[in-house]
Order: sequence, then structure tokens, then C-alpha cells
Amino acid sequence: MDPFSIVADLEEGAFAKSSRMVRNVKRLSSLREIFEDEADYQKSLSREDRVVYEYTRPVIPPEPGQLFFGTSTIHPGRIGREYFMTAGHYHAKLATGEVYLCLKGEGILLMQNRAGRTRHFRMRRGVAVYVPPCFAHRTVNTGSEEFVCFYCFPGDAGHDYESLKTRGFLVRVKERKGKPSVVPSAKRREGRNRGGA
Amino acid sequence: MDPFSIVADLEEGAFAKSSRMVRNVKRLSSLREIFEDEADYQKSLSREDRVVYEYTRPVIPPEPGQLFFGTSTIHPGRIGREYFMTAGHYHAKLATGEVYLCLKGEGILLMQNRAGRTRHFRMRRGVAVYVPPCFAHRTVNTGSEEFVCFYCFPGDAGHDYESLKTRGFLVRVKERKGKPSVVPSAKRREGRNRGGA
Repeated sequence: MDPFSIVADLEEGAFAKSSRMVRNVKRLSSLREIFEDEADYQKSLSREDRVVYEYTRPVIPPEPGQLFFGTSTIHPGRIGREYFMTAGHYHAKLATGEVYLCLKGEGILLMQNRAGRTRHFRMRRGVAVYVPPCFAHRTVNTGSEEFVCFYCFPGDAGHDYESLKTRGFLVRVKERKGKPSVVPSAKRREGRNRGGA
Repeated sequence: MDPFSIVADLEEGAFAKSSRMVRNVKRLSSLREIFEDEADYQKSLSREDRVVYEYTRPVIPPEPGQLFFGTSTIHPGRIGREYFMTAGHYHAKLATGEVYLCLKGEGILLMQNRAGRTRHFRMRRGVAVYVPPCFAHRTVNTGSEEFVCFYCFPGDAGHDYESLKTRGFLVRVKERKGKPSVVPSAKRREGRNRGGA
């Protein structure tokens, strides 16, 4: 394929519109399963189907040796006490990593592996986080402005959202006394009890 | 391996010192073969063995699925009319790409494939350039301050500097009437003639 260049505003974060970059928008209505407080989710949705996050992705063949990159923008907001966040995913090719570089705002990057080990990293402009192979990852906007990251991962990594729909993240990021706090997921505990394990 | 975070100054570019990031420094004395004007190279070197560029690279296993990332900083300067630049390389695993995102300064990213096709992209803060698989790449500082880029490539890509030592880049970036200009490489033409092709 051909080399190409695109332009980002490093103060505001997002890449400019380009034939090389596709923009995806995720609204509340498409994110039913990720928030813990279902009552407030329904209430928020009935008021407005807000944009929770959006991202740009390049027009590049999803093949080994290629790289996918772009920017993700999570808008500020909460459902109940839980901050706006991405759906989160493992890579379909599990043993592939990802790099995040925060360009704007503040947030937390959550990670979790198949063994149930969780890690989290606080991010602000300039912080890079390495997601090693085999870790699911989700970004959370804990600030009052847009939280924007540049990301890069292998072109053949793909996405596995399903594993997280059934198991979910073991931790959630909620506002506690005006500050973001990483706490165990209630939904996950319910799931455990229902499953009889 | 474990997830980790590091901090970069997005105004100045470079990552902070960290046990997760190693810094490599390239001085004039180690870059004998890359500049065209050998007389001025020797003259410059006799005055001072200047730092031409430096880069940070992560402490990550060079394995499939991992990603290498960091920042490269090319200092301003010239040898003859030719701007300071990186040695340039193919990836040892040829069919692997790389992403550059300029954080500071201005420069040009040169690319060349095995078929002798060359491309170049002007970069300034916020410009991202995609180097597709199978393209050698070199960055050139055409400005008067440091030229800093964030980069990311597959962990198992490796470096092949040797192919470029023998063939060289087919184009060079030189100052012409106060402006950077991409021109055919004289060294390359010599090589062709000597080779009798």
C-alpha cells in the first residue's frame, strides 16, 4: 500500500477529516451493557442519546505487519456515579499489544487479563501507557473536558468485545467524594453468584 | 510482561528518564556513511563530535505481538547543504510498518522501497505519517529547532541498516536558496556508474 500523512491538532487531539481516516461514533443507545446503574442509564437515554465516545481509524488493510492508529475521544459525563468510558476489548488475536498516548484531558486506562488480573493507570496529557499482549483494555474519562488519546496497535489484532460482555471488567471507575475511584464491579459479583461458582 | 506507563513532555517531545525507556545517542563520528559532503563531514567532526540525533526505546521483548515505541529527536544542523538526519533503515522483518507523529519542529520523512520508489512527507507538529510495510525510512530535520517525533512499530520488526549502507537513499534533503529541497543523491549516481549498470 501507499505511504500517507494525516494531520492532528495536538492541542485538541483529533485527526482532521481525511479519506485516510474513518470516524466511528458510539452513543449511549449502543452501550447498554457497559454501565452498572441501569436505572440511570435508561433515564439518561430517555433524555438524549448522547455521544459517549468516538474514534478515528485508518483505512489500512487488517494484515500482519500493518499498524492501526488514530485518536479516541471520550466525552465527559457519568451514568450514576460511573464515568463515561469505552466498551473495552481484548484483541481477537489475543497476544497483541497496544500503545496509548494521552493528548488532552484526564482519565484512567483499565486493563484485565484472562486470569482476572487487573491494572489501572492514570493518564493526563503526555502520559503513554503500554498495554502488553493478552490484556483487555478500556479508557475512562475522569475529567470535565474531552479525554483524547493517540493509539497504535498491530493491523491484524482485531477486536473481541464479546468476552467482556459476558464476564465484564472486574473493576469500575466511579466518582467518590468528588474524585475518581477504582472499585470492584457489582455486576461482576452478581454474575459470580448467579453462576454458582 | 507487565503493563507500564511513562510520561512525555508533549511541548518539548522527549520521554522522561525511566527504567522502562533506554536512550540512544548518535554522534557525527558514528554516521560517516550517511552524509554526501565528505570534506565538510571531516571538517565538522574535527571541530566537535556533535550529537546528530537521539531516541528513546522501550524495554520490551522483541517478540511478535509486542510494540516498540518512543521518541526520536534530531538536532538542527547541516553537513554541507545536507540537513542532519537519521541513518535510516528497513525493518529486518521487511513487511512491517511504522507510525510517526511529529511533536515538535519541522522535517521531512523519506521513504524508499526495494524497487527504488521514493516518497517524502513534510512534517510539523501534529502530522502523522504512515510508513507501510517494506519501505525504508529516514527522518530529516529541516528546521532551526529540535525535530521530535513519537514513533511506534511492531516489536519483532528489527532493523536492517546494512541494505542502505550499500545502496543508500536515492534522494537527499538539502538546503537550496534557504529552503529544504528533495534532490537526487549524487552518491547513488556514482554507485550506479561504478556498478556498470
